[in-house]
Amino acid sequence: MNDSIRVIVLGTGQMGSGIARLLLQKVGLQLSGVYARRKQREGMEVGRVIGLGRDLGIHVATNLEEVLDRTLPHVAIQATCSTVADALEEISTLLRYGVPVISIAEEMAFPRYRSPTMAGEMETLAIQHSVAVLGTGINPGFVLDLLIIALTGICADVQAISAQRVNDLSPYGPSVLETQGIGLTPEEFDKGVEKGRVVGHIGFPESIHMLASALGWTIDRIEEERKPIISKVFRETPFVVVQPGQVAGCLHRAVAYRGDKAVVTLHHPQQIHPHLEGVETGDVIEITGTPNIRLVGTPEIPGGVGTCALAVNMIPRVLNAQPGLYSMADLPVPAAILGDARKLLGKSVGKTIHG
Amino acid sequence: MNDSIRVIVLGTGQMGSGIARLLLQKVGLQLSGVYARRKQREGMEVGRVIGLGRDLGIHVATNLEEVLDRTLPHVAIQATCSTVADALEEISTLLRYGVPVISIAEEMAFPRYRSPTMAGEMETLAIQHSVAVLGTGINPGFVLDLLIIALTGICADVQAISAQRVNDLSPYGPSVLETQGIGLTPEEFDKGVEKGRVVGHIGFPESIHMLASALGWTIDRIEEERKPIISKVFRETPFVVVQPGQVAGCLHRAVAYRGDKAVVTLHHPQQIHPHLEGVETGDVIEITGTPNIRLVGTPEIPGGVGTCALAVNMIPRVLNAQPGLYSMADLPVPAAILGDARKLLGKSVGKTIHG
Repeated sequence: MNDSIRVIVLGTGQMGSGIARLLLQKVGLQLSGVYARRKQREGMEVGRVIGLGRDLGIHVATNLEEVLDRTLPHVAIQATCSTVADALEEISTLLRYGVPVISIAEEMAFPRYRSPTMAGEMETLAIQHSVAVLGTGINPGFVLDLLIIALTGICADVQAISAQRVNDLSPYGPSVLETQGIGLTPEEFDKGVEKGRVVGHIGFPESIHMLASALGWTIDRIEEERKPIISKVFRETPFVVVQPGQVAGCLHRAVAYRGDKAVVTLHHPQQIHPHLEGVETGDVIEITGTPNIRLVGTPEIPGGVGTCALAVNMIPRVLNAQPGLYSMADLPVPAAILGDARKLLGKSVGKTIHG
Repeated sequence: MNDSIRVIVLGTGQMGSGIARLLLQKVGLQLSGVYARRKQREGMEVGRVIGLGRDLGIHVATNLEEVLDRTLPHVAIQATCSTVADALEEISTLLRYGVPVISIAEEMAFPRYRSPTMAGEMETLAIQHSVAVLGTGINPGFVLDLLIIALTGICADVQAISAQRVNDLSPYGPSVLETQGIGLTPEEFDKGVEKGRVVGHIGFPESIHMLASALGWTIDRIEEERKPIISKVFRETPFVVVQPGQVAGCLHRAVAYRGDKAVVTLHHPQQIHPHLEGVETGDVIEITGTPNIRLVGTPEIPGGVGTCALAVNMIPRVLNAQPGLYSMADLPVPAAILGDARKLLGKSVGKTIHG
């Protein structure tokens, strides 16, 4: 058997730490380095940073080239940011070193729409260096796009798509909670939306354009609306406290039109501890077509653990892919890695692992 | 724009006819020939055979080479049989002509398990002739395997999988109804199971091994059980009549074990008109793992239209694939073809269409 597949993780927040912990549980995958943007994390023992309770003998580095020069990994997972613009430099560095990239930056789920030039740059670099780049995550990347696309596959025709994701943000870190305006007053929330500090869910245009691209639809416009979910009760997480009357989350909706016809409607109220007000979490997908399809998941497919799992479980798919820039709709579906990950590297369909 | 993608359909039963009708609705796809095994269909006008209500100027041929010699298609859809052994000759002929194949033969969903030698032969031929072969269908091929695999992709760990498909066989043709023992007495049903005439669902081992292969599990044994669903009421379809006390369907279960542990349990009662006895149809997938997942679809994802749609919607995926033998878990997910199918042919990921 070959050596393990060496994986580096970029990011030591909630997601980066979760991904690193998951990698340690997998046979055939080896956490070979961790990079953080925050300079104060330089040299810290990774086991402590990711909350493992034991030392790993790996130390956080804040210079990405240094990590790559030390031991070239077979693949990198990026969990440092949300936008393509913010993700580009790290991804470009990785690609220039010939390292395939899996990014959980939300906009990377379908970068061609919002950032065609940067997406083109990444694709060119990926092809030049013979590796693949993928954007993934639970949403965008799975529940409100990949899963819907797969379900349309059993349709002879589709008239409209409607989906709803009612989830619990309690497991998330402070950066996610802030972007939802959680803990603000309703007035602060509205001002935050206006100023662009409260963004709600990042990823509706990505999900909608991933869907449209797969189906062969042209979308004429997308309308988005963000409303505060005002709490009637006291709610708290390790990172935020919400008093009654304050904002517990953001109800974010997006409607995509072809001409005057609403063809995709996505409804996504995100808050901490929704059950405290009797709100049941869950995912609902409804396709109006031939046939009609209605699929319900209760409770919701959890975002935190789901995103970490997707990032890790897509490793074999990315290593088996031809060079290029991919969305989740372009590669075979993920599967939980329960055996030796090295056995999932295909011989015939792609390149073998390098190094 | 190139010429349309020429598609031939093998089979003029319920499925073959449904596939042919669907092809006629799609932009960029052209029904260029129809082959039937039944010699008495030779020369019949395809529009009549598939129940279109108008003539197409295409005539059924019962010699496959003749169809291929007349106009070489870009892809063929096989809807003539259920087993790999029965599918092999037609698939081999198509491959030797350099024609990619999509088969809805149930065992073709994962031929490597039951028929490794024949699967190997097909793969060799596919690679020699630079085309791809895929087995697809609603079940096996989608609900009890691909969809489950995709859902495990968001799991950090999986302990066990359980799924249930309660469906309505009323739209199916006589060959499917006979293999379920519908219309028999309970005694005839039991004897039919014993003699191998009543087979129940074809595809449990395929679904289970597709799952196991994707997850990296080794399955030690599969136990299957078939029981008659005895009707309390009168039920009928265009192809069968069931009196009270007779068999309206087959309750088929399969349990896959690793050692003594049941890791996959599939429960699939198939009958005509289940609603006549208040039985609600639907699909349920439950994954015990991290996280637990429960997904429910009501009513069931319909088998007939779903299988026809999958066969057609996978055309671009098969044309974009590298040469080889594929299951649904090996290719990007299907998507409904709502625009021009030719625009879905990738430039970078695969071969361009020939001809």
